[in-house]
Amino acid sequence: MELPAEETKETVVERKIMWGDLDALGIVFYPRYYEWIDGCGHLFFEAAGFRQGDLWKERGLIFGLVETSCKYFAPGRYHQEIRIVTTLDALEEKRVLLKHEIRSSEDDVLMVRGFERRICLDVSDPDHFRAVAIPGDIFEILKNFVSSVSVQ
Amino acid sequence: MELPAEETKETVVERKIMWGDLDALGIVFYPRYYEWIDGCGHLFFEAAGFRQGDLWKERGLIFGLVETSCKYFAPGRYHQEIRIVTTLDALEEKRVLLKHEIRSSEDDVLMVRGFERRICLDVSDPDHFRAVAIPGDIFEILKNFVSSVSVQ
Amino acid sequence: MELPAEETKETVVERKIMWGDLDALGIVFYPRYYEWIDGCGHLFFEAAGFRQGDLWKERGLIFGLVETSCKYFAPGRYHQEIRIVTTLDALEEKRVLLKHEIRSSEDDVLMVRGFERRICLDVSDPDHFRAVAIPGDIFEILKNFVSSVSVQ
Amino acid sequence: MELPAEETKETVVERKIMWGDLDALGIVFYPRYYEWIDGCGHLFFEAAGFRQGDLWKERGLIFGLVETSCKYFAPGRYHQEIRIVTTLDALEEKRVLLKHEIRSSEDDVLMVRGFERRICLDVSDPDHFRAVAIPGDIFEILKNFVSSVSVQ
Repeated sequence: MELPAEETKETVVERKIMWGDLDALGIVFYPRYYEWIDGCGHLFFEAAGFRQGDLWKERGLIFGLVETSCKYFAPGRYHQEIRIVTTLDALEEKRVLLKHEIRSSEDDVLMVRGFERRICLDVSDPDHFRAVAIPGDIFEILKNFVSSVSVQ
Repeated sequence: MELPAEETKETVVERKIMWGDLDALGIVFYPRYYEWIDGCGHLFFEAAGFRQGDLWKERGLIFGLVETSCKYFAPGRYHQEIRIVTTLDALEEKRVLLKHEIRSSEDDVLMVRGFERRICLDVSDPDHFRAVAIPGDIFEILKNFVSSVSVQ
Repeated sequence: MELPAEETKETVVERKIMWGDLDALGIVFYPRYYEWIDGCGHLFFEAAGFRQGDLWKERGLIFGLVETSCKYFAPGRYHQEIRIVTTLDALEEKRVLLKHEIRSSEDDVLMVRGFERRICLDVSDPDHFRAVAIPGDIFEILKNFVSSVSVQ
Repeated sequence: MELPAEETKETVVERKIMWGDLDALGIVFYPRYYEWIDGCGHLFFEAAGFRQGDLWKERGLIFGLVETSCKYFAPGRYHQEIRIVTTLDALEEKRVLLKHEIRSSEDDVLMVRGFERRICLDVSDPDHFRAVAIPGDIFEILKNFVSSVSVQ
């Protein structure tokens, strides 16, 4: 399903738009895009070398959401093949900015561009999450995956 | 949103079908019905006097799914008001059978009839769930809510 | 479920967070917020006096999405009661900006603030949607619901 | 994503369980399974040689739901790879019965077994769907894909 990032600094996921993704107009119901880009964020971290599921269980940390947004350029339709490209656009002490571009596989037309701003959270107390600095080893890994020169 | 069960042995939830619940034909995408009846099962337990969320945190127990099913009689449409009536149709040592009927609020037409068979699970070891007898105090509570004479 | 806007210029929807809205951390999975605010946008239009479902069927028009975003301030948890307040923050020739604030019903704490920028689309040709001016009668209706002095 | 059915009479779809598929217990929220098997039903028809989306637009027909059910044998967990195998278990004048088995890719353990009973509907009048016989050409195609000797 996903292609490993390897030398490149992006994760590419291909999928097919399904009947259940459509609204009554026959185009993708937009919360579906957020479901997909959330999943692609997790796959990006996994391709970089760590799984958020393990990070949570082993170290009580998770990259939680601060802000998300999407702009919509072209509607997705029944059984259309799409490609979701995820990059790490910014890396800060506590936060990361993931960019997701969704394009039609057939003609590369941009359909959706989205962002997720995530913050490193200590969730070891399930009732009180607390923003913390990204641990050094994770930070070093992520530094190699920042898509631009914007490491801060 | 939900009306308390009081003397009756049922939970009644009213809701409005929303745009995002529809598929490309303009009728409800059927997994939505399962989302709703799952929620109504939780509200049924809460109306009976205990929350599954607490049962899980305080006693490591949850009523997990063994089987679900739905029959579809009439499609749901945009902004239609519906009523979901949940009853406890059977109570066994380890298992409960919840019945959910979804009707159009306006004319009482039956749209969907569904069942959830749930089993009492000890989930204190998150990696290995184990079926156990429903604890006595919970069983006593549930006995009062069985809709028929079918307590076993 | 929703309270009519009446003299006020907002739509208020109350709901309860359900088990199926939670992720593995026990907090709301964020695409759910978008499902809810999408629904609240439809209810806002309905409270203002027209249903998007009718607008589509009778006039081939719909308010489609251009951009959405949410900021997350506090996580939602199991069976928490929340209140979603929707206002029309800007009205332009072709576009509207809906603001949605989600607060805990119990203590009024802000959990999520979101925006939906919607554009009036002629969808009479299902394969080619086209941005058009909001029809005069709809524009007049919406003008009365703009929450600020920012009508343009 | 899907492997074509070719000589075999089944459609096989592989996918990875994502964070957003999990509930607060860290296992798959069961309506997700229905979303997936619905999609696999569509892919089965497509692999057999016709797309439901086209059938609807060109001939006003669709295979609508009469009944669905699932039994749950083992929970799905974070980033687990699963395989969904879809077969046509029965073909009648107006109805089809699709069987879906979901197994762990790693060890082939059965996780979920589900059925969808679908009926051929004339949906050319969007307000009144009507059950009709499966057209002869479609019936002939489907006959070749029935997994057992149970054609009726």
